[in-house]
Amino acid sequence: MQEKLAKLKEILGVVADLHGATALLDWDQQTNMPPGGIENRGNQIGTLSSLAHTKFISDEVGTLLEDLKPYAETLDPDSDDACLVRVTEREYKKATRVPSEYVAEFTKVTVLAHGAWEEARAKDDFGHFQPHLEKIVEMRRQYAEFFAPYDHVYDPLLDDFEPGMKTAEVQEIFAELRPKQVELLKAIAEKEQVDDSFLHQHYNGEKQWQFGEAAITKYGYDWNRGRQDKAAHPFTTSFGLGDVRITTRVDENFLNTALFGTLHEAGHAIYEQGIARRLDRTPLAGGASLAIHESQSRMYENLLGRSYDFWVHFYTQLQETFPAQLGNVDLDTFYKGINKVEPSLIRVEADEATYNLHIMLRLELEIALMEGDLEVTDLPAAWNERMENYLGVVPPSDADGVLQDVHWSGGILGYFPTYALGNLVSNQFWEKINQDIPDLPGQIQKGNFAELLAWLRENVHQHGAKFKPQDLVKQVVGSPISPDAYLAYLNSKFGAIYGLE
Amino acid sequence: MQEKLAKLKEILGVVADLHGATALLDWDQQTNMPPGGIENRGNQIGTLSSLAHTKFISDEVGTLLEDLKPYAETLDPDSDDACLVRVTEREYKKATRVPSEYVAEFTKVTVLAHGAWEEARAKDDFGHFQPHLEKIVEMRRQYAEFFAPYDHVYDPLLDDFEPGMKTAEVQEIFAELRPKQVELLKAIAEKEQVDDSFLHQHYNGEKQWQFGEAAITKYGYDWNRGRQDKAAHPFTTSFGLGDVRITTRVDENFLNTALFGTLHEAGHAIYEQGIARRLDRTPLAGGASLAIHESQSRMYENLLGRSYDFWVHFYTQLQETFPAQLGNVDLDTFYKGINKVEPSLIRVEADEATYNLHIMLRLELEIALMEGDLEVTDLPAAWNERMENYLGVVPPSDADGVLQDVHWSGGILGYFPTYALGNLVSNQFWEKINQDIPDLPGQIQKGNFAELLAWLRENVHQHGAKFKPQDLVKQVVGSPISPDAYLAYLNSKFGAIYGLE
Repeated sequence: MQEKLAKLKEILGVVADLHGATALLDWDQQTNMPPGGIENRGNQIGTLSSLAHTKFISDEVGTLLEDLKPYAETLDPDSDDACLVRVTEREYKKATRVPSEYVAEFTKVTVLAHGAWEEARAKDDFGHFQPHLEKIVEMRRQYAEFFAPYDHVYDPLLDDFEPGMKTAEVQEIFAELRPKQVELLKAIAEKEQVDDSFLHQHYNGEKQWQFGEAAITKYGYDWNRGRQDKAAHPFTTSFGLGDVRITTRVDENFLNTALFGTLHEAGHAIYEQGIARRLDRTPLAGGASLAIHESQSRMYENLLGRSYDFWVHFYTQLQETFPAQLGNVDLDTFYKGINKVEPSLIRVEADEATYNLHIMLRLELEIALMEGDLEVTDLPAAWNERMENYLGVVPPSDADGVLQDVHWSGGILGYFPTYALGNLVSNQFWEKINQDIPDLPGQIQKGNFAELLAWLRENVHQHGAKFKPQDLVKQVVGSPISPDAYLAYLNSKFGAIYGLE
Repeated sequence: MQEKLAKLKEILGVVADLHGATALLDWDQQTNMPPGGIENRGNQIGTLSSLAHTKFISDEVGTLLEDLKPYAETLDPDSDDACLVRVTEREYKKATRVPSEYVAEFTKVTVLAHGAWEEARAKDDFGHFQPHLEKIVEMRRQYAEFFAPYDHVYDPLLDDFEPGMKTAEVQEIFAELRPKQVELLKAIAEKEQVDDSFLHQHYNGEKQWQFGEAAITKYGYDWNRGRQDKAAHPFTTSFGLGDVRITTRVDENFLNTALFGTLHEAGHAIYEQGIARRLDRTPLAGGASLAIHESQSRMYENLLGRSYDFWVHFYTQLQETFPAQLGNVDLDTFYKGINKVEPSLIRVEADEATYNLHIMLRLELEIALMEGDLEVTDLPAAWNERMENYLGVVPPSDADGVLQDVHWSGGILGYFPTYALGNLVSNQFWEKINQDIPDLPGQIQKGNFAELLAWLRENVHQHGAKFKPQDLVKQVVGSPISPDAYLAYLNSKFGAIYGLE
């Protein structure tokens, strides 16, 4: 059995190497590649992805998994090897259920759809994107059928990002969350708005960059195993556990973009850097799910980066970096400014109190499309109606509405809810952390993030993808994903900022 | 046949994609990678190289080549397809003659040898490297046997870098060259030395960088298909014909390092960028040989970059960039300074008049090692003896002598002569170019390199690896590689600078 396990690990190692090289090809494309490289790059990524897929779905892997499964079931279910066989088998089954003709066809469809979406958004012409999205919805329904029987047609899509999670669970959570977030938003709207004009001034890009790097250095981002570069659409990527890189975008006329972008991506990267090195070159060398990943980025961006305690430590330094812009802005004003709540059209610019509403709207529309309750042609109207109901604003154009996100053009349905779930989980973890480290606020005020990081390493990071997200959350906080902690956080934080009773 | 040809090209395309991705992994390692990434990177490069090798030496490729060979022989021998089949068959035969056990063993040996060499050089202890080099020589002899019968045991090594070239040819060329270069050097030594102290001042690195980039932009380096980054050991790399990058090293206390380094690498890159795009993703999408490649880099570095005509155009701009350093240095003094001849210990720092002597010494020692006429243990003494005979200097330590180059530690024998051959070829081409473009000096003085580039594109670059180096040279200048043009150039140039009769 040890020999078969070693053989499996060897093949998975090759697959991991191909994925790592593909990630570098992608990173380079977004950070360094000259325009003329695009055709070569497309061929290279295509070739490596295809080789990785072929290696992974080979009969040899299937036979090894079959042989190893009974053995793995005799092991401690939390052991690396038991998890490896379990997770690999799950991924193998998913990968082999989808015919390669479907994968090839879907790739073609989404390449065309992406181009059409870019044009549709530029011209504010939903009709140009509509037939492509119709094809995508049709093919996503086909995809779901590969996994029949299912409880809900959306389940197989969700499962790609949140292993084991069911649509019904998410709907239940969101049903509780939505009215309370809408209610909070209405209460805030009745209060006097805070000032954040000082954030919209000229801030030297190089200095912004240095401040962000200094902050994440304190967080514990390991520069020996990472670096930061510029990219138009920031992301975190890993070429193995020894090399986890982040990218950031700098806006010289708005302080928040680079600052909170860097803190956010660092949260993702610190998670990956914390995975036990012995899991490297296996399918376990990644996050447990997108929601768990997002819980880490949101924690480092919001629960830390937008907290009062964080700025008790960092604000003097920021003022010294930008004396002309912030010399006369006191800490309290600054804190309120970076936490300004304002219903807006664009998800990626949304504040903490409105963000989830953008997500819930998208989830409801995705589910309606998949169920056949909503035609693509009616999508813009449905979008605008929900925007008005949840956020009280209506997009003046589809470009600022239904066409704003890239996801659907890439065929990605099932992804959006993970953003909101990440917010919830971050607060569930946060409550537990504060129980376990009662002095945490004091530590943060001193710029000391070491005990927090040690806690996260121990309880979350080291496990990588060994456990399903719901199992991991239960293991850490004793209960499944729920909105209570997040709601309590929002009410407390914004109650204080806006003087709600 | 068209179907088989298409199938062959498809496989070669996959191999090319793997090579391109591997080149990116290597480029990133030398420019961007954080130290912690080394283990992942080693695995990734190993996996991709191995996959590329396995794909290439597959029976399927062998069968296709067998089937295609008679067909290719009916085609115009200079046609793309005829060349593709011929070159692929040559590489396939070479690759399949070497057992994979040998390749694996040799890789291990050289990894260890490289580490030992680094330590030996740092500690100036040849004995530490000696057993590794002995093993390498032994294995290179084994390698030669895979290609028996041969005319000379060194031929199979040379052939890896200069397809079709024989040791006897190189020896004949060098035998003619050596005494004349030694003679020239002695004549120069009797004359008054030129001043180059102004080159050894502080030059702002950023400004050096910009000047170099401006110069190679005029050369015609295509930034749409390239970029320049910093690296400790400068190199040019290609990830396909759409993305050919250069790297450069900057020394803020010596102007030559970055300047001539950039011009040199740009020559390599302009060659690759000039290869016909239709050859991309095939074994023809590279230089004809290392000597031909070096002919281009030396042409752009020396025949242009160290010429008086070049500086007639660029010197004012350089003076304006560095007024404090060069404001009082006139063009004539500058020209002589950058062409100062001085026998020195280190090959990579050698001037045009001494460079080839460093090479000839290495070739003679490599041949003696391969023939068994020289034991590794006697190598340092043999090195120092030749240094004294050819250059009149003796290394004070092996670190500055026999241990200075990385090549042998990587198992690379047969490579060194290509540097000197490149110098010769660059001058053979140069003579022909000046016949075909009589106004070239005037164009260079105006900073106009377009007609030169068009000539190189037409006569050299576009062909990629379609022809063997000797065939290409004959095709371009009407005669094989010879030292005459180079000797005439050296005598004329340095005769003028040093006032020889």
